[in-house]
Amino acid sequence: MSEIIRIIGIDPGLRNMGWGVVESQGTSLRFIAAGTVRSNAKTDLASRLCQLHDGLSDVLHAHVPHEAAVENTFVNKDAGATLKLGQARGIAMLAPAKAGLPVSEYAPNAVKKAVIGVGHGDKSQIKLMVGMLLPKATYDSDDAADALALAICHAHHRGGASARIAAAAAAG
Amino acid sequence: MSEIIRIIGIDPGLRNMGWGVVESQGTSLRFIAAGTVRSNAKTDLASRLCQLHDGLSDVLHAHVPHEAAVENTFVNKDAGATLKLGQARGIAMLAPAKAGLPVSEYAPNAVKKAVIGVGHGDKSQIKLMVGMLLPKATYDSDDAADALALAICHAHHRGGASARIAAAAAAG
Repeated sequence: MSEIIRIIGIDPGLRNMGWGVVESQGTSLRFIAAGTVRSNAKTDLASRLCQLHDGLSDVLHAHVPHEAAVENTFVNKDAGATLKLGQARGIAMLAPAKAGLPVSEYAPNAVKKAVIGVGHGDKSQIKLMVGMLLPKATYDSDDAADALALAICHAHHRGGASARIAAAAAAG
Repeated sequence: MSEIIRIIGIDPGLRNMGWGVVESQGTSLRFIAAGTVRSNAKTDLASRLCQLHDGLSDVLHAHVPHEAAVENTFVNKDAGATLKLGQARGIAMLAPAKAGLPVSEYAPNAVKKAVIGVGHGDKSQIKLMVGMLLPKATYDSDDAADALALAICHAHHRGGASARIAAAAAAG
């Protein structure tokens, strides 16, 4: 019986921080939980970063993942938006690192390649494949679905789940 | 006798996070401490963010400021640099907010205006004015000097120290 690894994927954003937890064992993947940590846009930036940090810390405490994967992206067109995303991403990386988890980073096209089988594709394709790979998955936002895709991507890259993902991608 | 307010200024950066603590009482300002929290560029991003967070938390614990001021800036030319700065800035705002401090943000030209008297000026002018306003100030980096300028700017904006700053600016 191969080792069970519990992985959290985090899709960072200042307004909505998607998260998804899966278990990877050998070539199998299992859905554990997913959701969205939200910050209140009516409060100041420092308070919003606290809300994201506290929410994410609660999730880490509740689901006790072993490893984390965070999306590595940047918004090219707007420096203000990129700075905001960076601030949220700082929190998305700090919270699991402070909890002692190794944190891996994946570019969006690496996530798509791992989940859809190619490096491009839209949100509906990602959701479709997340549903195929994790039939019991439920999530409350696109960001949570993206976070599950990140967790799947990390399972793929660290070894285990690649065969199962490849088979599902071929079937899809 | 008016209230003593202890202010920490933080100049965020992924490599070097400058900090400076001053006390503001009525129209007078007093240097308390300044320094630089550094992250090890040879370690991964999540570890570097932890190093910055832990270093900054130590400073907050050692000097117990009441209020924080963080520079609000972005790098326009390079989205990658902006994202990095954003991540460091997320930590610079989270650490004091988690410690219960109100966190204010100031644009670089607001800092220059408060310290030099005009909204433009180079690093040497900022250092000159920091030295005039805080004769006992010592610091180990440009970032720490900028952080002291931020703390002075906040003292100015919250009321107290404006008369003293204006007088020193006129003398300079």
